[in-house]
Amino acid sequence: MQRAARTIDPNSDAAIAASVTPRPIAEIAGSLGIADADLYRYGPFKGKVALALAQKAEADPRGKLILVTAINPTPAGEGKTTTTIGLGDALARAGKKTAIALREPSLGPVFGAKGGATGGGRAQVIPMDEINLHFTGDFHAITAAHNLLAAAIDNHVYWGNALDIDVRRVSWRRVVDLNDRALRKVTVGLGGPGNGFPREDGFDITVASEVMAIFCLARSLVDLEERLGRIVVAQTFARTPITAADLKVTGAMTALLRDAFQPNLVQTLEGTPVLIHGGPFANIAHGCNSVIATRAALGLADYVVTEAGFGADLGAEKFLDIKCRQANLRPSAVVVVATVRALKMHGGVAQKDLGMENIAAVSAGAANLRRHLENMATFGLPAVVAINRFTSDTPAEIAAVEEACRAVGARVHLCSHWAQGGAGAAELAETVIELAGQPSGYRPLYADELSLAEKIETVARRIYRAGSVVFDPAALARLAEFEARGYGGLPVCMAKTPYSFTADPTLRGAPEGFILPVREVRLSAGAGFVVALCGDVMTMPGLPRTPAAENIHVDEAGAIWGLF
Amino acid sequence: MQRAARTIDPNSDAAIAASVTPRPIAEIAGSLGIADADLYRYGPFKGKVALALAQKAEADPRGKLILVTAINPTPAGEGKTTTTIGLGDALARAGKKTAIALREPSLGPVFGAKGGATGGGRAQVIPMDEINLHFTGDFHAITAAHNLLAAAIDNHVYWGNALDIDVRRVSWRRVVDLNDRALRKVTVGLGGPGNGFPREDGFDITVASEVMAIFCLARSLVDLEERLGRIVVAQTFARTPITAADLKVTGAMTALLRDAFQPNLVQTLEGTPVLIHGGPFANIAHGCNSVIATRAALGLADYVVTEAGFGADLGAEKFLDIKCRQANLRPSAVVVVATVRALKMHGGVAQKDLGMENIAAVSAGAANLRRHLENMATFGLPAVVAINRFTSDTPAEIAAVEEACRAVGARVHLCSHWAQGGAGAAELAETVIELAGQPSGYRPLYADELSLAEKIETVARRIYRAGSVVFDPAALARLAEFEARGYGGLPVCMAKTPYSFTADPTLRGAPEGFILPVREVRLSAGAGFVVALCGDVMTMPGLPRTPAAENIHVDEAGAIWGLF
Repeated sequence: MQRAARTIDPNSDAAIAASVTPRPIAEIAGSLGIADADLYRYGPFKGKVALALAQKAEADPRGKLILVTAINPTPAGEGKTTTTIGLGDALARAGKKTAIALREPSLGPVFGAKGGATGGGRAQVIPMDEINLHFTGDFHAITAAHNLLAAAIDNHVYWGNALDIDVRRVSWRRVVDLNDRALRKVTVGLGGPGNGFPREDGFDITVASEVMAIFCLARSLVDLEERLGRIVVAQTFARTPITAADLKVTGAMTALLRDAFQPNLVQTLEGTPVLIHGGPFANIAHGCNSVIATRAALGLADYVVTEAGFGADLGAEKFLDIKCRQANLRPSAVVVVATVRALKMHGGVAQKDLGMENIAAVSAGAANLRRHLENMATFGLPAVVAINRFTSDTPAEIAAVEEACRAVGARVHLCSHWAQGGAGAAELAETVIELAGQPSGYRPLYADELSLAEKIETVARRIYRAGSVVFDPAALARLAEFEARGYGGLPVCMAKTPYSFTADPTLRGAPEGFILPVREVRLSAGAGFVVALCGDVMTMPGLPRTPAAENIHVDEAGAIWGLF
Repeated sequence: MQRAARTIDPNSDAAIAASVTPRPIAEIAGSLGIADADLYRYGPFKGKVALALAQKAEADPRGKLILVTAINPTPAGEGKTTTTIGLGDALARAGKKTAIALREPSLGPVFGAKGGATGGGRAQVIPMDEINLHFTGDFHAITAAHNLLAAAIDNHVYWGNALDIDVRRVSWRRVVDLNDRALRKVTVGLGGPGNGFPREDGFDITVASEVMAIFCLARSLVDLEERLGRIVVAQTFARTPITAADLKVTGAMTALLRDAFQPNLVQTLEGTPVLIHGGPFANIAHGCNSVIATRAALGLADYVVTEAGFGADLGAEKFLDIKCRQANLRPSAVVVVATVRALKMHGGVAQKDLGMENIAAVSAGAANLRRHLENMATFGLPAVVAINRFTSDTPAEIAAVEEACRAVGARVHLCSHWAQGGAGAAELAETVIELAGQPSGYRPLYADELSLAEKIETVARRIYRAGSVVFDPAALARLAEFEARGYGGLPVCMAKTPYSFTADPTLRGAPEGFILPVREVRLSAGAGFVVALCGDVMTMPGLPRTPAAENIHVDEAGAIWGLF
């Protein structure tokens, strides 16, 4: 009876994806020069690139790296992933040997409000049902590795606590790859002596795990295990840090992650190869796919298109200051995605009024876009704007965006990859090829030698345009402690609302001169960065009133519907 | 530095497994008549049998089904899995088209004390590292499906609780596929209104999930979803049962389980095909691999060797009364595994004294073995004893077991498959072929029409040889309630210590006339049985003082060691 009530939208992403028969994955691998023996298959349409080949490829990352980023997100939507896919397809159509590098979807959003993370319309990665559900099991492996370490902590305390761990100071929480607000704050170890020592604990979503961040920054299995060993999980009663290495489970954690560490290979609707691998949070972590996937792609293809989480103030900055710095990457060009609708919201229009033409709001909102373009120049990178077209956009509104871009000397293209696939991003691809033809002028924003506080201030002032940064006194003390312990050379990972250049999510557009509060700092010693929290950060989302899960089902033929 | 301290035992199961190059999985599939198009590969040596083919095969389960079970387990070890593998290899060597059907390993024991679950010595399933870690992700899928339902319950309450769920009466716990005693009893929903309503909760290990039991008893995806929908997760304030169907996530749960539901195909060291699929607990659930795998194997092979959890009093009884009844299976013969060492323990010898010859103790302990042989006759099945040889066994001790078996007319064979592979179980295979040549006399122990209490009493008196059964009054009231709600026709699933015929784990041998206490009963409406708990049952193990995880590591070449 439940089944009968379910309907399938023929224009849904799932229906479009189902209408295309994927090419055998060996054929996709072959287009990148990957032999059958180097392809670890997961069914006919998914595979992993053997680690040995990935490491051979990543040792010579000669391709050109194109970053797709965006204006500050709004509820109107931007389409960063579809643009990444559309641009990749367009480059392939232009005859370039192209690969796309993306993050893996998390089950949390799939069952929550957001749905899948494999693009949309004619700009999708397939098989979208498999990728959006378990894919090749990487996130489950990360979940298991994370929780094994958590179990080892409580087990160590239970069996006598030789390391003298203070159970009030265990910072390593547990994870689950679902949205489950009831697990945000829990007490564990209840029920008597046989169950251990009661203590406060909580669960984050798997993408917020430091294991995820480490997985995405490690260059080899040896590097992976060493980084895992550096994770600080607790303090002793004497306030000495306890690491994962102290608990002797980093070998088992690495064993759990061994197969997952091989980059996943799939394809777009148009058959362009896509490496989808890892997916750290973009707030407390750096928000982009694995280094091993990006570098391997650069060794296998001439053009690699990748994306970073959130808007360019967070995602691109971290991509450039954390990932590119650690992984020795030099991107060639940046695409900044904007939509007319989102710019209208940055110009002050309410979501309910987006249907009405409003040229003045578009022009005003374009200040947000221009600020991001200026910031990309600060990193020494050429940028081009992609207007991701919606059918409701009017010619005059589009002209207003184009004018705002040209006023600051920026190239801009109207793109229709959602409706047309790669053909809808042909001009964008031409410009990207032209920009990437120049030697990369990439330079990170700050030097390793600056103090941690100075690094935070540099990002706040030069990228966000804050007038001043106010540190919580405890945060400043912690930064001094990190520096005393030898972590002063790490880059900083800003955790801030993505909706504004400021720490206030309601301040759209391009505010400046504001105060940026730094409330708390955390060390991710394994990942290799110091997190600066500027406001509340949610590391375990909740499900909405009507979760997307309620629409997902399997039909009699075994097809899955409801993943948008 | 940590790495240097690790040593590898060349006689370990892992080293033996690594010394054999597996045959390509397509070749193994081909030996069962499975075409390439019906094989969903997970790398070169693992695959899943396409559901359509599995269902075609299971519709005509013409092969002969051989059950491997054992005496009551002792710390001395029995070797049920190695015997299952060795017998399968021996049948294949005898020219029979053979398949083996086993349970999947859980990560809990792998990282805890027990180690892997893929056999040992020359009787192993490979690739043992991959099978013992994530395998094809089935348990992760079951974990995710289980926890999605849990999140949906708390989310429903959070958003207004239209179903009027009493948070004090939520019986659906959460699961994790690890040993983690700190999670046995927890409180969730703490931290304020934004995180929901605080309530008591707890985590079981994934194998204890009713989703696991359902997965292993469902015949199709439609059956799977219907069974999931029948799971009772909570009660309202008016004490009305709330089911998973009420929470509208059974479609999403089925989507999570779709790929997992296809049976996994691997091979023994000798290249015999093995279907490894599902793995429910043998206490609160029925403890054997999936129905779809067993029935598909029977459609693909002439002989199928499978095993059931624990000793024959629990594992075989549930296999015969729950699985065979629900799945319409008629086994042909039973192998009861015993070791000299274990029989000595049943005869009163302490573990530390097992090294000394003790013929009298062997003879006394054989009473346990004879009881199980009698019980198999009660089910109308011919049984043969396999003595799983240990190097410490003396000729006189072995003769004592043989004599005890012959005294009750039972066939018995000394087996050395651990040391010799299939060649070590050749005589056992001959006898099995002979016994299975007769039409199956299988009959379940009790009729569906008996009351639930009568079913429990029948198992207790006829299989365990209890003198009487004492029900907790609340348990009796619950049984009456289940019957009033229409569940009276279900079989019962006994949850009792595996170490004794009684509810007291210290009473070895063959006690009789004792009192069996039934302390609690639970309804598994989706799985389709009523659980009777005779004593404490642990559904979340803890890690030992020195977990096996501490020995597991990945070497420079990417090989995993330490999985025994």
